[in-house]
Amino acid sequence: MRVVWSIGDPHGIGPEIILKSFLKLEQSGHSFLVCGSFAAMEYYRKQLDLPVKLLKVDDKSELQSAGTFQPGILPVLSVAEPETITPGTLSADAGRVAMESLRVAAELCRDGVCNALVTAPINKEAIALAGFRESGHTGFLGNMFGVHSPCMMFFDPVLDLKVALATIHVPLKEVPELIGRMDLDRFLLDLARSLKTDFRIAAPRIALLGLNPHASDGGVMGNEEAEIIKPCIERVSDRINIEGPFPSDGFFGAKRYRDYDIVVAMYHDQGLLPFKVLAFDTGVNVTLGLPIVRTSPDHGTSFDIAGKGVASERSFLEASKLAGRIAQNRKQTES
Amino acid sequence: MRVVWSIGDPHGIGPEIILKSFLKLEQSGHSFLVCGSFAAMEYYRKQLDLPVKLLKVDDKSELQSAGTFQPGILPVLSVAEPETITPGTLSADAGRVAMESLRVAAELCRDGVCNALVTAPINKEAIALAGFRESGHTGFLGNMFGVHSPCMMFFDPVLDLKVALATIHVPLKEVPELIGRMDLDRFLLDLARSLKTDFRIAAPRIALLGLNPHASDGGVMGNEEAEIIKPCIERVSDRINIEGPFPSDGFFGAKRYRDYDIVVAMYHDQGLLPFKVLAFDTGVNVTLGLPIVRTSPDHGTSFDIAGKGVASERSFLEASKLAGRIAQNRKQTES
Repeated sequence: MRVVWSIGDPHGIGPEIILKSFLKLEQSGHSFLVCGSFAAMEYYRKQLDLPVKLLKVDDKSELQSAGTFQPGILPVLSVAEPETITPGTLSADAGRVAMESLRVAAELCRDGVCNALVTAPINKEAIALAGFRESGHTGFLGNMFGVHSPCMMFFDPVLDLKVALATIHVPLKEVPELIGRMDLDRFLLDLARSLKTDFRIAAPRIALLGLNPHASDGGVMGNEEAEIIKPCIERVSDRINIEGPFPSDGFFGAKRYRDYDIVVAMYHDQGLLPFKVLAFDTGVNVTLGLPIVRTSPDHGTSFDIAGKGVASERSFLEASKLAGRIAQNRKQTES
Repeated sequence: MRVVWSIGDPHGIGPEIILKSFLKLEQSGHSFLVCGSFAAMEYYRKQLDLPVKLLKVDDKSELQSAGTFQPGILPVLSVAEPETITPGTLSADAGRVAMESLRVAAELCRDGVCNALVTAPINKEAIALAGFRESGHTGFLGNMFGVHSPCMMFFDPVLDLKVALATIHVPLKEVPELIGRMDLDRFLLDLARSLKTDFRIAAPRIALLGLNPHASDGGVMGNEEAEIIKPCIERVSDRINIEGPFPSDGFFGAKRYRDYDIVVAMYHDQGLLPFKVLAFDTGVNVTLGLPIVRTSPDHGTSFDIAGKGVASERSFLEASKLAGRIAQNRKQTES
C-alpha cells in the first residue's frame, strides 16, 4: 500500500516524527511519501542529523512513476513551502503549509494515487491565523468528503484496545442533549460496518458505556440510559452484537474492555481518560466513516520540544502501520 | 487507635472481608471491633473456616473494658441480628441490619468510644426496601452530622494517588450547573484543611481538572473554565497551593498527578475512570469533612461471590489501615 504523510505544522514535531518513523518502516511492506514542504523536511533532517535520503517531487504526475518510490529514499511532494522555519513558534504561514499539505494529501487518496493518509499534528491556533475555520483534521476531512460526522476512534495496538466517541469536541453541558438528538442507531451500525471493512472483524462485539455515573443506577442518577441508550440497544441488537449501557468506571476498572472489540464512550473524556491512562505512547487516532483511510498520532504539535530531536515517534509509527493495514483490509473486502 | 467496622449487608462480602482483614492487621498497632451481627460473623467464620476467634459483646458499656480487646480476638458488638442469613440475596432484613450497624458504629465514633469508622459495603436496594431514604453511607453520615456535602475522596496507597470529587451522584446533565452553583472556594479550602489534619500534608498541592474536553481549549468548547474555575483558582490561590484547570485526559495520560498531593475532578466518572484504571484493587474511599474519621473499600456488596470465600480483602484492608492512620494524624494535629 502507498501511504501519504501530511507534514502537519512545520514548526511542530511533525517532520521529526516522520523522519524517525520512515527509518523504522522499511520492512513494513508499504511505501511512504510526504506531502508538504521539501525545505521543512530538509531542515529537520540536517538539524537532527537523521540518515534519511529525501527526494524532492515537484509535481503530482511524478508520483505515477515507479522511480519515485525506491527503497531507502523518502519522496517529498512539495506543495507549499514556508517563508521561514522556526521550530516551536506559532505562525499563520506554518498554518497555511499544514492545511495545504493536508488538502493535497487527501486529494491523493481520493484520486487513488495513495491508499491511506496519516496526518502529522497541526496547531489549531496556527490554522485559525491562516484563515481556516475548521476545528481540525477531522472537521476538514468531513467537509471535504461531505461526511456529516465522521467517527473518532482510538486504537492501541499493544492492548488491542479500541475506543470510539459518540460525541467529540463539544462542551460537556451539550453532551446529554446531543446524545438524544443524534442518530445513535446509525452511528453504531456504521461503526460495526467500519470494523468489518477496516479491521476485518466479522461480527464485532460492541460495548456501550452509560452517560451518567453508575450508568444511572437504574434511573437514580439520570434518565438517558432508560430513555435513549437502552431503547437504541434494543433496536439495533438484532443486527449487531452490542451490550450495555455499562458504568464506565467499573467497566474499565474491571478490564471488561478485553471482552469486546470496541468500547463506545458517550463523550470525549469518558473515552480518552481511560484510553490515555492505558495506552501510554502507542495510541493511534483513526477516523472512521470517510471514503479514505485516515489515521493520526494521538498527540499534538508539541511546540515545546520541536526541533530538539527528543520527540517520540511511537504513536506516529503505529498510526502509519495501521493506515497501511486498514488500506489492505479495505482492498481485500472490496475484492 | 480503636477502629470500628460496620458489618455492611450481611448477605454481601462484608463479613468475609472483615474476617480476612483482621487476620492481617495484628501488627497494625490498632485495635478493631465489629459493630453489627454476631450471628452473621459466626456464620461466615464457620462457612469459610477462617481461624478468627470472635467475642460476642452485648452492650456498648463492655467496650470500655480493656478485657474486650485482647490480641487475636475480634469483639463483635451485637446491635442487630438478621432473621436468616442467605448469602447473595437481596433482603429488607439484611438492609435493616446494615443500617442499624452503621448508625451505632457512627455513634461510637461520635462519642469517642472508637476513633475511626470503616464501613463494609451496603446494598442500596436492600436499604431502600428496609425503608431508608439515604442514597448510601455518605448521605447517611452527612445527615447524621449535619454536614451538607461531605467530600468524597479516593486514595490509593500503592500509587499515593488521591482524587476528590467536586460533584458526586448526580445526573451528568446537572453537573455544569451544579459546579456553577456550589461554593467551589469553600470546597477547595475545606479539602486543603482536611489534607493537613488527616494526611499531615502541610501545604497540599492541589490540581484542579477542567470540566470540558481539553479544559475547553481556550473557550472553544465550553465556558465554565473561564467563568467559574479560573476565577475560583485566582480567589483561593493566595491561601492554598492550587493549579489548573487541566485537560483531564492529558493530565492523567502524562501522569501529571504525580506532581500533586490531590487531583480534584469535576464529576464522578472524570475522577473514578482514571482512578479505577490505575488503582486496581487497593483503592480506598475516604469521606472528608465529617467530624468522625470514615473510610470504606471502593467496591460494593458483590452478591455474586458472597459466601464463597473468594472475595479480595485488599481494598478493605487498606481502608482499615488508612482509618487508623487518619485517626492518629487527627490526634497529633489536635495535640
